[in-house]
Amino acid sequence: MYIIMVYDINEKRVNRVLKIGRKYLDWMQNSVLEGEITVAKYEKLKMELLDIIKKDEDSIIFYILRTTRYSKREIIGQQKGGSKLII
Amino acid sequence: MYIIMVYDINEKRVNRVLKIGRKYLDWMQNSVLEGEITVAKYEKLKMELLDIIKKDEDSIIFYILRTTRYSKREIIGQQKGGSKLII
Repeated sequence: MYIIMVYDINEKRVNRVLKIGRKYLDWMQNSVLEGEITVAKYEKLKMELLDIIKKDEDSIIFYILRTTRYSKREIIGQQKGGSKLII
Repeated sequence: MYIIMVYDINEKRVNRVLKIGRKYLDWMQNSVLEGEITVAKYEKLKMELLDIIKKDEDSIIFYILRTTRYSKREIIGQQKGGSKLII
């Protein structure tokens, strides 16, 4: 499956969240990562993030695409990350 | 169709970008909006944003889902926006 992860994290914890995200996903732009991932690794990613975030201050949204057949990406302005774009 | 819009915009222009985004989409969390939109309105949204952003500094990514049948959203931590969640 393919996931898009967007996070809104207190600056005290944001670098740790980014570091974990990058172990599993590709950085796209500020606060956005995405990539192909297995269900097991996705569960691991969430567990690692739950260890760090404060649930009443931080927020992370995952968009989970079972297939990328019906999705596409369009970028306006600068393309920052995403060297391995697959959708 | 359904779009997710994530933006990384210089602070001088970020409020104007958010204001335009909110005319068409629902705010989800910092720098993320999403919603059902027609092709015509999506083109209008992009035109309005292109009038404001600086292409060498700012970046906006749109994820366009032709259908939401194969997608879902998971949130960890605080749910900030998204009162009208449909996926």
